[in-house]
Amino acid sequence: MLLTDQLGRTEAVADGIRQRIAARVLAPGARIPSVRAQAEAMGVSKSTVVEAYERLAAEGAIVSRPGSGFYVAGKTRPLCLKAMGPELDRAVDPLWLARQSALAGSTMMMPGGGNLPEAWLPDDAVRRGLRAVARAETAIVTRYDQPQGFPPLRALIARRGAEKGVVASPDQIVLVDSATQALDLIARFLLQPGDTVLVDDPCYFNFVALLRAQRATVIGVPMTTEGPDLTALAALLAKHRPRFYLTNSALQNPTGTSLLPATAHRILRLCEAHETLVVEDEIFGDLEPDAAPRLAGFDGFERVIQIGGFSKTLTAAARCGWIALRPDWVEPLVDLKLALSLGNGHVCAALAHGLLTDGSYRRTLAETRRRLAGAMAQVARDLSECGLRIWAEPRGGYFLWMRLTDGRDAADVARRALTRNMLLAPGVVFSPSGGWQDFLRFNVGHCADPQVMKSLRAVLG
Amino acid sequence: MLLTDQLGRTEAVADGIRQRIAARVLAPGARIPSVRAQAEAMGVSKSTVVEAYERLAAEGAIVSRPGSGFYVAGKTRPLCLKAMGPELDRAVDPLWLARQSALAGSTMMMPGGGNLPEAWLPDDAVRRGLRAVARAETAIVTRYDQPQGFPPLRALIARRGAEKGVVASPDQIVLVDSATQALDLIARFLLQPGDTVLVDDPCYFNFVALLRAQRATVIGVPMTTEGPDLTALAALLAKHRPRFYLTNSALQNPTGTSLLPATAHRILRLCEAHETLVVEDEIFGDLEPDAAPRLAGFDGFERVIQIGGFSKTLTAAARCGWIALRPDWVEPLVDLKLALSLGNGHVCAALAHGLLTDGSYRRTLAETRRRLAGAMAQVARDLSECGLRIWAEPRGGYFLWMRLTDGRDAADVARRALTRNMLLAPGVVFSPSGGWQDFLRFNVGHCADPQVMKSLRAVLG
Repeated sequence: MLLTDQLGRTEAVADGIRQRIAARVLAPGARIPSVRAQAEAMGVSKSTVVEAYERLAAEGAIVSRPGSGFYVAGKTRPLCLKAMGPELDRAVDPLWLARQSALAGSTMMMPGGGNLPEAWLPDDAVRRGLRAVARAETAIVTRYDQPQGFPPLRALIARRGAEKGVVASPDQIVLVDSATQALDLIARFLLQPGDTVLVDDPCYFNFVALLRAQRATVIGVPMTTEGPDLTALAALLAKHRPRFYLTNSALQNPTGTSLLPATAHRILRLCEAHETLVVEDEIFGDLEPDAAPRLAGFDGFERVIQIGGFSKTLTAAARCGWIALRPDWVEPLVDLKLALSLGNGHVCAALAHGLLTDGSYRRTLAETRRRLAGAMAQVARDLSECGLRIWAEPRGGYFLWMRLTDGRDAADVARRALTRNMLLAPGVVFSPSGGWQDFLRFNVGHCADPQVMKSLRAVLG
Repeated sequence: MLLTDQLGRTEAVADGIRQRIAARVLAPGARIPSVRAQAEAMGVSKSTVVEAYERLAAEGAIVSRPGSGFYVAGKTRPLCLKAMGPELDRAVDPLWLARQSALAGSTMMMPGGGNLPEAWLPDDAVRRGLRAVARAETAIVTRYDQPQGFPPLRALIARRGAEKGVVASPDQIVLVDSATQALDLIARFLLQPGDTVLVDDPCYFNFVALLRAQRATVIGVPMTTEGPDLTALAALLAKHRPRFYLTNSALQNPTGTSLLPATAHRILRLCEAHETLVVEDEIFGDLEPDAAPRLAGFDGFERVIQIGGFSKTLTAAARCGWIALRPDWVEPLVDLKLALSLGNGHVCAALAHGLLTDGSYRRTLAETRRRLAGAMAQVARDLSECGLRIWAEPRGGYFLWMRLTDGRDAADVARRALTRNMLLAPGVVFSPSGGWQDFLRFNVGHCADPQVMKSLRAVLG
């Protein structure tokens, strides 16, 4: 049995503090436990703690403020997502890609973009919808929406879910301002700082940024052409005991894959065994030609929370998202939503409701699916001719996940494309592990433009 | 010098873990440091740590998962704001009050509400504005707003600030979906878990809920009729080294007071001396008859961040808020905004811009100020006749902070009012320290209704 001497104890105290600073349990500017409290907590004398603190102060790790105590050195800096990842150039910086994808009226060609081209979105229907909202009752144009969100839209969302085998009552639906805000609210509802979350690898890059902002540890589950690698999922669940697993069951971003029933069943079994929740992002679900199984449908909202929205399919200018979850979590979630935002947009909820009931949404979905089906086949052929290989045939949607077969690094290709005013989305951007370096995600909506494909050929050729 | 024996060391290790569980540094379900790491960190033998962990497991504080390690006992529960405060009844539950204030079409009388009556809001202007947006370019009705927010509206907000002596370029303005979201984004930008924030006591109750959701420690600075108590502020700054001080300079909620120039100067000097930032909430600023000094105006955005929005004065149904801050923080803040929401509502920003440029907003402000000035005087007289005493004469706005002079508890009065279908806002709801128990906040817009005042007399009499 090891007997520590005075020197050893001093170093042990100092090292404990160093570790807590390194882990940011003690952040810059935070107060260090008082000498007395630390001495009691570690069962050492006060003089040992004083010596340890003096050592840390001499190192510059902490500073003494007379009459007030010791503090972690350094000015607290604001949260900088950029500083939380490696230093990146524009071609592989997810934050920069997000900005570019959001830029309206950009003159940049967007084969790597995350949204449909402006011309594909139903602007006439949205204009009609806005005029209809302008005629709505006064509360809809002047007042906060109801705490849980516009009841008629919640009823519609519940009904649409049932068509995909997902049974929730309107009382289980909470409206929010977007699917992204839905995930953010869920993350804040469920996560403690330092919790682990599993995502797919590759996955939508913003998932990682959003979860990191919530100070979660984000770990990727390798994707296969048939969905997440179940052996890897089982091992990661056992090792990390994650709070939840975040996935797209339908038309996964960026791979375009959808879950098979047996895979859905096994994911739920595994998550149940490890007491891990599932957050199922439905954002592309309405673009499926016919519905793949949903985890929420199999599970009945015991373990699964579903999120979705209309920014990808209807309009991103008047946003509206939703969360479906177990009944006993609705009230505390709505409390949190009110505290953090006072509520979702009433006008946007009424607009979405109008477009979902007047037939506009069904028409635009049918038209978009038809255009995408044609474009998907053509773009896949065109890209194959450029020497790229398709990873898995998507059932629908607008993403193609393609592999460069000539050993080139996709980030290099994206850098070259940028010099030609073209945004590409290299695989590494979507990978929490920094993998998939020979992959690119293509948006077939943008690639279907012959001018864009011509430029793309030049870049890829 | 105290020499600890094996028993003392075991207890020291166990107690360190107990403290970290109590402080939620180790949350339910979190993994405890491995035996080896803990032994190294504390300079004790592994057998000491094993013994300590066995003791904690026997107590039920932690659980062992064979092959995986030790974990804090208890299922992680979702964040429940209600559980973070004392158990309250409806009359004094801020979350419930927030729900009631948001409920559109409520038949409840709302002398304690936080918003103007529906009939006071410019619904015709909003309807016209929505029709105008329906005619706007396609990007405005279908696409995400630009990452920093609609440039014409940012230019307008900068110009309006200059009229109040607050000089910021449009590049220093970031649009968000509401003033509440503005505060939330700032809190996430600036705060580490466990940081301290100062607020006014009393203050807008949602401040406390929002900051607690960000795991901040919230401490109140006592308000005087001339603004925050500067002696108390100085002491609290020295003692707690808060990250920021959150306040309304103009028409403080709930007291209705506005800062005097000398007070503004002294607040900034004190915060500078203690390296504390200031977040200035401008939400009621446009209701002032003439502009009180602004902390951001004196400071020039070195230390002050300003937030605001239009939900109180224009419409709460299509929300739009803004943040003005130092130039070098704009880019990381916009990164964070995109990660957490993908951006503010394009339609809402265009709507606000339209109503601010077509004269609607100036007209509605002038009319609202005129109505409020008349109602304020009348309601103050009526309430005085009920035996309440005004705390400080507000310069404008719609809140009156009144004291019960007969020794009654305001929460009891609010409970009684609830049985008569009337929402009152007792002082304790606004107090982070649980004080102000003989105060009520009145909304003169609602109290100006003779029917409401009649019922109010019955409740108060």
